[in-house]
Amino acid sequence: MFPVVVVHGGAGQVPKERSEGSSLGVRMAARAGYAILRGGGSSMDAVVEAVSQLENDPFFNAGRGSLLNIKGEVEMDAIVMDGKTLGCGAVSAVLNIANPIRLARLVMDKTSHVCLTAEGANRFARSVGVPEVPPESLVTEYSRMCWNKEQEEKKGMGTVGAVAVDRQGNVACATSTGGVANKMEGRVGDTACIGSGGYADNQVGAVSSTGYGEAIMKVNLARLILFHMEQGQSVEAASGLGLAYMESRVGGLGGVVTVDPQGHWAARFSSLQMAWAAAQKDTLHYGMQTGEDFTHIDL
Amino acid sequence: MFPVVVVHGGAGQVPKERSEGSSLGVRMAARAGYAILRGGGSSMDAVVEAVSQLENDPFFNAGRGSLLNIKGEVEMDAIVMDGKTLGCGAVSAVLNIANPIRLARLVMDKTSHVCLTAEGANRFARSVGVPEVPPESLVTEYSRMCWNKEQEEKKGMGTVGAVAVDRQGNVACATSTGGVANKMEGRVGDTACIGSGGYADNQVGAVSSTGYGEAIMKVNLARLILFHMEQGQSVEAASGLGLAYMESRVGGLGGVVTVDPQGHWAARFSSLQMAWAAAQKDTLHYGMQTGEDFTHIDL
Repeated sequence: MFPVVVVHGGAGQVPKERSEGSSLGVRMAARAGYAILRGGGSSMDAVVEAVSQLENDPFFNAGRGSLLNIKGEVEMDAIVMDGKTLGCGAVSAVLNIANPIRLARLVMDKTSHVCLTAEGANRFARSVGVPEVPPESLVTEYSRMCWNKEQEEKKGMGTVGAVAVDRQGNVACATSTGGVANKMEGRVGDTACIGSGGYADNQVGAVSSTGYGEAIMKVNLARLILFHMEQGQSVEAASGLGLAYMESRVGGLGGVVTVDPQGHWAARFSSLQMAWAAAQKDTLHYGMQTGEDFTHIDL
Repeated sequence: MFPVVVVHGGAGQVPKERSEGSSLGVRMAARAGYAILRGGGSSMDAVVEAVSQLENDPFFNAGRGSLLNIKGEVEMDAIVMDGKTLGCGAVSAVLNIANPIRLARLVMDKTSHVCLTAEGANRFARSVGVPEVPPESLVTEYSRMCWNKEQEEKKGMGTVGAVAVDRQGNVACATSTGGVANKMEGRVGDTACIGSGGYADNQVGAVSSTGYGEAIMKVNLARLILFHMEQGQSVEAASGLGLAYMESRVGGLGGVVTVDPQGHWAARFSSLQMAWAAAQKDTLHYGMQTGEDFTHIDL
């Protein structure tokens, strides 16, 4: 079994002027996650590091760069799940946190709960010494430009995530988002919903989802794909089946990155594009359009 | 196919002095839901009516009677799902609302979102004319007594819910809760998580869950049971398999009510007790201890 990390930068339509930055961002995040795996680190450490990098990168709709809600505020959701224990942590509608994915992990590690929301999540952050950042530090020129534009136009943009398998065969997932542009205050999407925005189980595999959150929730996309794998489908086939079912049953587009404990991996999407990158056996794979799989050897 | 509604009043240990009130409450709620089905009403109307009655009944941990968080406040979660469309609505950590289940349905019916949380959910309530009630109107002597008692002692108390099938063969679920006693501010449990606290799909059936929320979320209990039914298991066997898996994999106890579109139903629990009632073919079934199934004919 070869350790692997697979990263996505959100399913949707990547504007032309942002495509190089997005591709570069997911490749750097995959490298960062892989460096941890290669050093013998855990899949949980790898996915949290990869997603933190994407949260810090203003090209993505998570952390800095999050799309704004109807009031022009950044409200973020994030989730992590550990396939060994089924332990999970999530935050929803949290404000003024640079790395919601690290806060979600602290919910898992430091509380008896799975999910904390809104002011309760911020209160927890303060109690464990996670600093609040000025709201404007998370807002970019681009996210402000998207604000109050026709909502439909931007619906698909979203959500970063990662899945990984480490040397011990443990799988993990992490997903983080600013949500859909112009969302209602307090809207929680699939990202904070265990089994929708992500799921990880050492007996089956791990999935991180992106796309139209309301559709992803209706079909429990991450868990659905893992059920197909339990029925004997490959990571690739199961990911395709899950996305096709979501599109036919509830009309939603999206994308996923998926691994199994043997280190097989897939990056699939039904949206126009999804920036993704995977690192395994010292090789970096990446793409953005359907069918693309570029490789860099000697990572 | 015979329309049916199945109601639960929460898995856990029902204190002796509350057992008669709890049993009466679930029977009245099942009758109210069944009256709607018998009149040709929808399964969605039936489950919302049944759960609203339980929210209004101070014997249950939902609406009035909700257990208090660490600050001594009532913060409630609720979910509805419509098996015909997979449409769903949820609220989490909402304050000062008499019937969160009706607010969850309004999220489904009146917004493009699935879940609204905390102040955002309250803001939505105001925008659609749902009145806020004084916080103390939801607090009972019993919930105040439980507050700050040893948390372990009360862990299992919780959550009301219902599933139903109507004459058209449409299934629906509804679940509502005040959450676990002495929970952290902003804690969201399984109830607001699609696929954990409830799931409904006309092609398979519907489930409403109760029990230790953090365990229910880790295994996506409601969706898991429906996957077993898709593999050919009966409502009874699938419910038992889901609960047994949860106990063995993550150590949590709970209970469920389950239906399939043909009108087969089950009320199963791994906890010590669960007050439940089911109405079908003008007969009321009910119980609270393992193995009990009392019947009243001529409902």
